[in-house]
Amino acid sequence: MRISELSATADVPIATIKYYLREGLLPEGERLGATQATYGDAHLRRLRVVRALIEAGVSVAECRRVVSALDDPPASPHDLLGAAHSAVTATTDVGLDLGPAEALAARLGWRPGTCDPAQLAAVARALQALDHVGFSVPEAAMTAYVEGIRAMADAEIAGVPTESAEAAVRYVVLGTVLVEPLLLALRRVAEQVASAERFGIRE
Amino acid sequence: MRISELSATADVPIATIKYYLREGLLPEGERLGATQATYGDAHLRRLRVVRALIEAGVSVAECRRVVSALDDPPASPHDLLGAAHSAVTATTDVGLDLGPAEALAARLGWRPGTCDPAQLAAVARALQALDHVGFSVPEAAMTAYVEGIRAMADAEIAGVPTESAEAAVRYVVLGTVLVEPLLLALRRVAEQVASAERFGIRE
Repeated sequence: MRISELSATADVPIATIKYYLREGLLPEGERLGATQATYGDAHLRRLRVVRALIEAGVSVAECRRVVSALDDPPASPHDLLGAAHSAVTATTDVGLDLGPAEALAARLGWRPGTCDPAQLAAVARALQALDHVGFSVPEAAMTAYVEGIRAMADAEIAGVPTESAEAAVRYVVLGTVLVEPLLLALRRVAEQVASAERFGIRE
Repeated sequence: MRISELSATADVPIATIKYYLREGLLPEGERLGATQATYGDAHLRRLRVVRALIEAGVSVAECRRVVSALDDPPASPHDLLGAAHSAVTATTDVGLDLGPAEALAARLGWRPGTCDPAQLAAVARALQALDHVGFSVPEAAMTAYVEGIRAMADAEIAGVPTESAEAAVRYVVLGTVLVEPLLLALRRVAEQVASAERFGIRE
């Protein structure tokens, strides 16, 4: 299909598609001449993935790393998860104290070597931000976080498809990035429901 | 204290403090003359909160709404939660289909009227983004999300302090915004732990 049809089918403006092409997020189409190219279903699928990532707030640079994990998947599903996570994680801060993060991670079943240090660093940064404003998570809430998140992760990892590397990559990459907004939105709904039950709603 | 001491104590550059003052995120200090002002502990506490929100990715406009909820808290804890959530939530999209979001919210215990529509819209947007790329969350994972998130929200809401409005506002506003990065980071650690257990780690 021509770029105009790709644009209409995916509901993405032509100028945006050209931007994705320039940024290397979408592979070039097959050249038909000096100024025209044709695009296939693979372009359409990739365009939808890129669009969803960008709309989910993933930066162009992160998006490029996700796309490269889709194009060139690592051999094992565990390495794949690491690649997907590191594509959307800031680099490790030098000098960050990982102790409190490791203690919390241990409650999830973490042992040294079972996890990319950048993810522990993200936990450490989040704990530090809470600490800076003097906010301490009540122990009952922290227990609920640890238990709930471990149960969620078990269910997610049990669902990783193993029939093809492409299917595993899609599941892991998109499940990491695109499920996050869903979880945060569900948490707010659940908080409002629990709050209405505890405090009542004023008429 | 002078602005230089405020800057040193909070570890925030003077230029940044002046920016927060101009943007209305931090109240003016007490004037000592044409070019000098003095700041108290309330400024220091507020500066730490603003800094943490901005570093957590909250925009200046959202931050201003959070700060205004801190300055002028609503009367009931349930309204307060609504104010905190709406401060950091995009406005409702016109024409968004809320049906699938309502069905999912019902599994959290939602009934019509127990929740700000903007939060349901956020769930709907997240579901739509997944749908656009053809990603479906496995039913076992969705069940784990719903059950885990409801248990977390119950523990969080049970912990809302009721001894003062200021304490409740801090808990709800900071718990909403600053705990999110912690939960996402813990989820990635838990996924890597569960993945290492399922797939093993290559030596």
